[in-house]
Amino acid sequence: MSVTAPQGFRSAGIAVGLKSTGKPDLALVVNDGPERASAVVFTSNRAQANPILWSRKVAQNGQARAVILNSGGANCFTGDFGYETTRLTAEAVAAAIGEPDAERILVCSTGLIGTGDQAFRDKIVHNVPTLAAALAADDTTAPAAILTTDSVEKTVVHTGDGWTIGAMAKGAGMLAPGLATMLVVITTDALLDGEALDRALRRATATSFDRLDSDGCMSTNDQVTLLASGASGVSPDEEAFSDALAAVCDSLAAQLQADAEGASHDIDIEVRGAASPADAVEVGRSVARNNLFKAAIFGNDPNWGRVLAAIGTTDAAFDPYQVDVSFNGVRLCHAGGPDRPVEECDLAPRRTRVEIELFAGDHTATIRTNDLTHDYVHENSAYSS
Amino acid sequence: MSVTAPQGFRSAGIAVGLKSTGKPDLALVVNDGPERASAVVFTSNRAQANPILWSRKVAQNGQARAVILNSGGANCFTGDFGYETTRLTAEAVAAAIGEPDAERILVCSTGLIGTGDQAFRDKIVHNVPTLAAALAADDTTAPAAILTTDSVEKTVVHTGDGWTIGAMAKGAGMLAPGLATMLVVITTDALLDGEALDRALRRATATSFDRLDSDGCMSTNDQVTLLASGASGVSPDEEAFSDALAAVCDSLAAQLQADAEGASHDIDIEVRGAASPADAVEVGRSVARNNLFKAAIFGNDPNWGRVLAAIGTTDAAFDPYQVDVSFNGVRLCHAGGPDRPVEECDLAPRRTRVEIELFAGDHTATIRTNDLTHDYVHENSAYSS
Repeated sequence: MSVTAPQGFRSAGIAVGLKSTGKPDLALVVNDGPERASAVVFTSNRAQANPILWSRKVAQNGQARAVILNSGGANCFTGDFGYETTRLTAEAVAAAIGEPDAERILVCSTGLIGTGDQAFRDKIVHNVPTLAAALAADDTTAPAAILTTDSVEKTVVHTGDGWTIGAMAKGAGMLAPGLATMLVVITTDALLDGEALDRALRRATATSFDRLDSDGCMSTNDQVTLLASGASGVSPDEEAFSDALAAVCDSLAAQLQADAEGASHDIDIEVRGAASPADAVEVGRSVARNNLFKAAIFGNDPNWGRVLAAIGTTDAAFDPYQVDVSFNGVRLCHAGGPDRPVEECDLAPRRTRVEIELFAGDHTATIRTNDLTHDYVHENSAYSS
Repeated sequence: MSVTAPQGFRSAGIAVGLKSTGKPDLALVVNDGPERASAVVFTSNRAQANPILWSRKVAQNGQARAVILNSGGANCFTGDFGYETTRLTAEAVAAAIGEPDAERILVCSTGLIGTGDQAFRDKIVHNVPTLAAALAADDTTAPAAILTTDSVEKTVVHTGDGWTIGAMAKGAGMLAPGLATMLVVITTDALLDGEALDRALRRATATSFDRLDSDGCMSTNDQVTLLASGASGVSPDEEAFSDALAAVCDSLAAQLQADAEGASHDIDIEVRGAASPADAVEVGRSVARNNLFKAAIFGNDPNWGRVLAAIGTTDAAFDPYQVDVSFNGVRLCHAGGPDRPVEECDLAPRRTRVEIELFAGDHTATIRTNDLTHDYVHENSAYSS
């Protein structure tokens, strides 16, 4: 169970031939109410796919009824034809579930940019009735239908005090801030209005997905959707709900990191002692995006010099000759010079922890990233060919 | 011939055991005058190696007499001991060439960060007399002694109207703006004062090395040194000299790009129609640093969607849905949508040209980069182990 764990939701996932593998590629999540509150966060990339352009309009009313998601094509940079495909998709869903207003239907697409021709349109629109007929309150097929190069489904369920949150995500590459290359659907039966949902969602994404930076590449199609049915009848304490939502998003971010394309290490970069939260994030991100650092981790080389070279490119407040750097708990660099012998540090485990102490304040941030591997190069050089 | 092509210079390169391969690893270039004007540009990384800290002081007087360069160790993040090593090196050179002031001796180091122990110091300082004894006006050994992972020597000679410019460079990775991972020594027998040299050097590096962004990683040790002997007795037209120096730096930048670690494509990204020069550079750099784009080029995949996704992350002025993108002369994207079939584009040749037309103004910039390959990952995951 994932998005149907909370009361008031049905979902389904089917195969309509968008993926050449024949695997499931079309999913639908419907909020059956009684309430229909929603909040959505979109990619900050200025190059936005047609489903993003459409869904931005839908998101404004804060009352989305359903979200349809396809893998096997991003419908991005496909022009007016592509936008029309998105609109027709939303209309088909509205008709199939008895919703009079197509602008209550969110649309998400993922796959290769530039894919969105007549065949793509037909496979989606013609199969919406079949998809809607498969909707079920105990569905387990939706999470698989949104995957692209992912190797595993990403789901999480959180049980609160009389209310529940369920979620599913896809994403395995092009993971970078604001947001990563991912689609996320989160459902809850808690009774909350759109504004409360929006506050909670923005807080949760800021410290989870926005701090996941697998390869520094920002997607054109990212969308995190939160739908609330109110079916539990319980109005949760807003802070308790916000904390739970943050934990759900954090779990999904960790699952995305663990399934990043070609990665052999999941690297958590914890920056401490920063003068501001923004400084902490900037320093962590400069390391997360440094290809030499990432290649070194792939080679099990705790190359602290590359960490210092990376953070030296930032504008954050600190003295490079005061910084401490630890790998997996072994402090290899103290005050900008060598400390413990690198031989004491074991980077063989997949989980890798880099701690950077700036001694410039008391703010902290953790950026999640991955190493740069042969498999990453292979997967991303052969993706569309 | 390279740095000794102009009159008034001697150089030498020898092996002192810093490299485990036994290859040459220590070079010296001496300006014998009659003039001693100099200009130097340094890395903008805030994490700066000890030779950079030392050479910044030397550069202030604008009258450097000589520059000593070692490969096989960066002497960066090696603390006070490392700085003392640099000072002792400069003093040894001053003594060996009869220069009373050690603060006229520039020092450059390249190699692994954190390397700079007693053995490193001894190998350099004890061998300076031997190095000085090898100085010759027809030397050809210096360019090889500054190489690290480079596969070829990088040199260029420009003959002006009665004056000459000679240059040598090293650099094969960690190539990024302001500056790249490289050491460059440029000599001239033109009669120019320090201020004119400085103006010409800053102009030349801004459009050459600063637009070379092989892997987005900025070095801690970069230094571009320009020494003028005045031995030709000719005062060149300043613009003619500046143009010649820009051409010399451009040639070296192209040589560095062509020898980048593990690269299989040299990619020139030409941005046209930008609202400002800064916008043109930002857009070009966003593509040059996009790992998905770089991996696609390695796979001979002209993935224009990744170009648009990359430039969508910038703040430059343009409409993503108006942009044209060409690969090797074939326009694959027009007005933010598909144009010619990708099959028409051949990315097999090493030289790759990506043209991006923003239609937002009349400014242009070309960023040089490389693809992301298995060999890049291999070289940089195994470098220090």
